[in-house]
Amino acid sequence: MKLATVGYDASDHAAVVMEHEQRLVLLDRAAGYALPRESRPLLASMSDIIEGGDRAREAIDRVLADPPEAAVVDTTDVQWRSPLPNPPQIRDFGGFMDHFRNARARMQGVPAHSVELPRVQLERPLYYIANRLALAGHETDVHWPAYSTVRDYELEFACVLGRGGTDIPRERAAEHIFGYTIFNDFTARDTQMEEMATGLGLSKCKDFTDANVLGPWIVTADELTDPYRLSMVARINGTEVSRGTSADMDHTFADMIAFASTATRLYPGEVLCSGTVPTGCGVEHGRFLEPGDTVELEVSGIGVLRNTVVTA
Amino acid sequence: MKLATVGYDASDHAAVVMEHEQRLVLLDRAAGYALPRESRPLLASMSDIIEGGDRAREAIDRVLADPPEAAVVDTTDVQWRSPLPNPPQIRDFGGFMDHFRNARARMQGVPAHSVELPRVQLERPLYYIANRLALAGHETDVHWPAYSTVRDYELEFACVLGRGGTDIPRERAAEHIFGYTIFNDFTARDTQMEEMATGLGLSKCKDFTDANVLGPWIVTADELTDPYRLSMVARINGTEVSRGTSADMDHTFADMIAFASTATRLYPGEVLCSGTVPTGCGVEHGRFLEPGDTVELEVSGIGVLRNTVVTA
Repeated sequence: MKLATVGYDASDHAAVVMEHEQRLVLLDRAAGYALPRESRPLLASMSDIIEGGDRAREAIDRVLADPPEAAVVDTTDVQWRSPLPNPPQIRDFGGFMDHFRNARARMQGVPAHSVELPRVQLERPLYYIANRLALAGHETDVHWPAYSTVRDYELEFACVLGRGGTDIPRERAAEHIFGYTIFNDFTARDTQMEEMATGLGLSKCKDFTDANVLGPWIVTADELTDPYRLSMVARINGTEVSRGTSADMDHTFADMIAFASTATRLYPGEVLCSGTVPTGCGVEHGRFLEPGDTVELEVSGIGVLRNTVVTA
Repeated sequence: MKLATVGYDASDHAAVVMEHEQRLVLLDRAAGYALPRESRPLLASMSDIIEGGDRAREAIDRVLADPPEAAVVDTTDVQWRSPLPNPPQIRDFGGFMDHFRNARARMQGVPAHSVELPRVQLERPLYYIANRLALAGHETDVHWPAYSTVRDYELEFACVLGRGGTDIPRERAAEHIFGYTIFNDFTARDTQMEEMATGLGLSKCKDFTDANVLGPWIVTADELTDPYRLSMVARINGTEVSRGTSADMDHTFADMIAFASTATRLYPGEVLCSGTVPTGCGVEHGRFLEPGDTVELEVSGIGVLRNTVVTA
């Protein structure tokens, strides 16, 4: 099942994507017809659906059995939001080692296979916490901050937790995943190069209003059963610039969930991002973004996430 | 005014700290007596108070004019929570340059004045985003994660935003501050040394369940009119180990608000932390924490934040 959040008729709605992605069922509206009053809050928003667990899923199935016409809209008539508009937290991990090798090789002018990464990075899925409030969705314009002129995308995908927990064992981690979505981690690369000098992390290079794009929707985990065989492609203005596969993840989402939850409570709705797939950003291939460029990230089994970069 | 969040009678309450910190007025209870029904939600929680702005403040003044006995409790009868239990975001900045000089000097065995910091750090209040869900309050035990044996505190204070905004000018930034609180940024120092090797930021060294302690309360900005003349002291088991002053901040909260809000929307309730005052952590003076140690952070004009470290 594909679950989106869309703006329609002056408010936001969680929705199921139907019929070759041409139509949507607005779940709050459908619930108003098909569900008893006490069950309707289960479908009020994506957070409610995630936290509602099996009960919310059953409510969706009931609604979809015979969706009322007033709840069905064309995808061309909506504004796409981040599928989860208010995630409690977003962590972005370094999942693919060859991305780091490629990037360093390019910056240092050496072959990628000669790059030695810090051992800690090979052994652990390190991450930073992203600005969970700086979100955008599919087909929204990304306003680039004036302080940066080296504009880059990052081709990633992400899992959304359905269940929280502490010290989640790796072999049980998959049970905690609600679904998957595409993540474009827009990055002010010039700013990043300056900020990395301290070793203390990343500030404004990844923290501006439209920096974190999630979407176009969440594919539930029961539908996307093998997240580690997905092709991942990026195009700028229709020309392919990146091609990789999630099979190359050195740290899986299970590794990330186990690592992040060590001595730390994770909550339903938290988003864990894969890191950039090898070839998946301008640092690796030299093509950065100019105002007016449209970036498409395609991940097989999920969809296409499309955004245009504009000046702020 | 000092505003706390406390656990009492099986639920959490926003409260005003009264009478030499001996008594508290539970605001939701007092509102039930003193306010018309439609005004009571203004005092339901600290988030509501912050978002309620002047209207919430007037409601507090009304309630305090004659607080009903049933709303007044002894501070010895409550559990202290993080004063803002659910901040939308926490950024921790590097505000004091001598902290970084001291720490590097100690690690490299050179005099602090000879340490050259990256220029970007002198010019900008760089920050990382902390786990906003890993919070604890005053007098709660901090469970140290088993993966670390070099346990450290960091003596900091923080401002809480009352109003959000984008591109907030430095000279207007103070108007956006709701109040101030003390922040202990507990840090697994051994883990940090390993994680910093990548330059990409800090992961598990500052991300465990009790890592971020705020409290004991928020002092509103009208009461703490000069946040840059506060003495800052830390004691371990009663022995002073750190002494500094907020006068030494190289980047002020106004700088931080202006910087973080550049091309990024900030929201009411976001927390911006000062960074460690010089001498304010074990890396600088060599005294780390052992299980059973009690750390007190005292910031003049705010109060004392006390926690005991225990093994997880």
